[in-house]
Amino acid sequence: MTSLLKRVRISLLGALIVFPAFSAEKPQNIIMVVADGMGPNYVAAYRYYMDNPNTPMVETTVFDKYLVGSNSTYPHKVSGYVTDSAASATALATGVKTYNGAIGVDINKKPLESVLVAAKKQGKKTGIVVTSQINHATPASYMAHNEHRRNYNAIADQYIDNGINADVMLGGGWAYFIRDDRNLVAEFKAKGFQYIDAYEQLDSTNKTKPLLGLFADKGLPFAIDDNNPTRLAKLTGTALKHLKNDKGYFLLVEASQVDWAGHGNDIAAAMAEMHDLAKTIELLEGYVKQHPNTLVVLTADHETGGMSLARDGDYAWNPDQVKQVTASADKIADAFLSQRLSTDDITALFGSELTRDEIKLINRAQTMLSPTLKGQKRTRELSKTIKSIIDLRSNTGWTSSGHTAADVPVYAFGHSATQFAGAKDNTDMAKILFQLIRE
Amino acid sequence: MTSLLKRVRISLLGALIVFPAFSAEKPQNIIMVVADGMGPNYVAAYRYYMDNPNTPMVETTVFDKYLVGSNSTYPHKVSGYVTDSAASATALATGVKTYNGAIGVDINKKPLESVLVAAKKQGKKTGIVVTSQINHATPASYMAHNEHRRNYNAIADQYIDNGINADVMLGGGWAYFIRDDRNLVAEFKAKGFQYIDAYEQLDSTNKTKPLLGLFADKGLPFAIDDNNPTRLAKLTGTALKHLKNDKGYFLLVEASQVDWAGHGNDIAAAMAEMHDLAKTIELLEGYVKQHPNTLVVLTADHETGGMSLARDGDYAWNPDQVKQVTASADKIADAFLSQRLSTDDITALFGSELTRDEIKLINRAQTMLSPTLKGQKRTRELSKTIKSIIDLRSNTGWTSSGHTAADVPVYAFGHSATQFAGAKDNTDMAKILFQLIRE
Repeated sequence: MTSLLKRVRISLLGALIVFPAFSAEKPQNIIMVVADGMGPNYVAAYRYYMDNPNTPMVETTVFDKYLVGSNSTYPHKVSGYVTDSAASATALATGVKTYNGAIGVDINKKPLESVLVAAKKQGKKTGIVVTSQINHATPASYMAHNEHRRNYNAIADQYIDNGINADVMLGGGWAYFIRDDRNLVAEFKAKGFQYIDAYEQLDSTNKTKPLLGLFADKGLPFAIDDNNPTRLAKLTGTALKHLKNDKGYFLLVEASQVDWAGHGNDIAAAMAEMHDLAKTIELLEGYVKQHPNTLVVLTADHETGGMSLARDGDYAWNPDQVKQVTASADKIADAFLSQRLSTDDITALFGSELTRDEIKLINRAQTMLSPTLKGQKRTRELSKTIKSIIDLRSNTGWTSSGHTAADVPVYAFGHSATQFAGAKDNTDMAKILFQLIRE
Repeated sequence: MTSLLKRVRISLLGALIVFPAFSAEKPQNIIMVVADGMGPNYVAAYRYYMDNPNTPMVETTVFDKYLVGSNSTYPHKVSGYVTDSAASATALATGVKTYNGAIGVDINKKPLESVLVAAKKQGKKTGIVVTSQINHATPASYMAHNEHRRNYNAIADQYIDNGINADVMLGGGWAYFIRDDRNLVAEFKAKGFQYIDAYEQLDSTNKTKPLLGLFADKGLPFAIDDNNPTRLAKLTGTALKHLKNDKGYFLLVEASQVDWAGHGNDIAAAMAEMHDLAKTIELLEGYVKQHPNTLVVLTADHETGGMSLARDGDYAWNPDQVKQVTASADKIADAFLSQRLSTDDITALFGSELTRDEIKLINRAQTMLSPTLKGQKRTRELSKTIKSIIDLRSNTGWTSSGHTAADVPVYAFGHSATQFAGAKDNTDMAKILFQLIRE
């Protein structure tokens, strides 16, 4: 064999490895992971946050292994260039651009079929695992149709009324599923669902029955404040066991609260959400090794906060100042508001001693709180000062409490992963998945 | 032929198209394009800036066609996680992490070989085409070695003293190449170089002689202010004609002033630089079609400015408010400072009429300028108000006058382009290029 031929043979072998689609089969199982609000800087930030400062190079993360491209996120032009989570989730779920606020409907409010529903029609099992309430914008766009995301009760009702009855639904939502006017949990139980409401029950579910698990009134606690800081990974692991079957499944996993931390401009909370997501992706990585007929795609719906790793002309980002923080800014603010904290208490919350000036800042902010400001609003007002201290220490920048039009990264591994390579649009995610799901 | 076989044959054909490296040869010509400061948001911004608002989808750009991955940009850990242009250019050019400020030397100030020098050793022609002075940090890291980027004269001296004598050098730099103590232009002429100093001469150069072209004292004017707003594309076209030869060439192209616009937080100037870069990439796209043995790689050295497409909780970015601006903020400020502008003059500069409040803002800023502030400093102070008006109109956010630790996108096309796919580090760019260059 000539050297050239040998090289061609080796290259062909390489191509076979790169394109497992050569088997000409479609993936049996599809896992779509949406990290709400995860702009590209969140992923870079997490890399530096996890860095071992004692090694010469920065360690790569599980995300870095699987980057294949990016998505543009703009909504239908009736809503300009910056999307909300409803329009972008509808694009990811159905392949159609719509107006901000729309849940699974187009600009004429016509219902759109989602990839989850298409999978169910093919006889596949379906599931949603989220850290928000399970009827929040992203999962709702895969499961329901409504002219506005804020109609939470109507959306929750559809989860049982429209007959989709996903085989696994895990997240928060007591407020919407156990109501005075309707008890959807009881209705799901009557349909043969088992219901759980505590993380401890996750290991002892009956794998042959469909599962509804609600663990909070609305969203779960922030990962940084939760007694299980990797709760998304835990919920996902349980879902995988329930969904396994010969015809395969479609599972939506949402790291919902990356976005919430972003809206709050809380870098420590955001990084804890990213850590839970990384643990989830590592779990899925192991799963795909055991079940190579599985496709995993991870992307975001948009960027939140205009976050930047450095600010104010200073060439530095200090992840150690983020990593040592042990609670969300809201929880720290609550602690200041509800009790007289000792220096040790404060040091434990921030992870290191505050300077005299930092203490003064917090004291002044407390003094200036309007007495008419109560409850969560009072917490949020003081929380701003807590976050400004962490931002200054870490040199983290933010430009917004809302979303931006940044492109978001796309990661994929397993069966047919290469199909997601390159610069794409959020609608392309659903278009490719429909091709992989439908006959 | 069975359907499966047919599919395999089609997929193999696809693989052959995707992997032109099947020919097992190395690329003859390598063109490395560095867009200084071009974080991912600059590319997304340019897409929306170029959008035709009358079509349902946003048009994709030439960049979108060729996205293959991303680079991390952090310097050697002695300089933290946020790089300057010298350390990142040294990483891109030599594959080694170094301290901020270093030009082609490691942390022990030991000289490092660049891919440009390695290409020259292989008998290839070499060239640098930039919009900064040609001895600025990025080109200098490919051509010279110095413990600090600010030693501009010493770096310029090396361009002739170290014997590299790149066959084409185009950009700015009279201040450093024609000095009282040494006239490098005369020295290059004595070595057989032809010298030009006006864009008009670019079409009539002698293609058989090496070429030195300097068109400004330091950097060229901003694209938005230049009489040739696509001057990088023009310079690159000339360089390609000079470099063509049987042994191939290595060409560094730098869109230097994306970074400068970013440092100034001048969104209109940044988008004009991106447009010049897009025209350059389109030119290279056509060239690669004619010369498929050419590899083109485009990346950035870092992000500048912490730019975001939306700010302050408002879900909007308004590129039309950027696109209509006809001059850099500094040039607009100069116009206000040097003459009494008519309403029509002002409208022409901003692209639309200013509101009464916007006029008031500028008038107040002029009144508040300290009389001791002179020249460029005076311009820059007023320029801040000009930019704040354009940022508010377009809803553009910034967090810094410096760099950030964002990952930057990587684009590649032509021979061996797939080698750059995935999440990589800036040092990987040089490592891959060395493999493609060296025997």
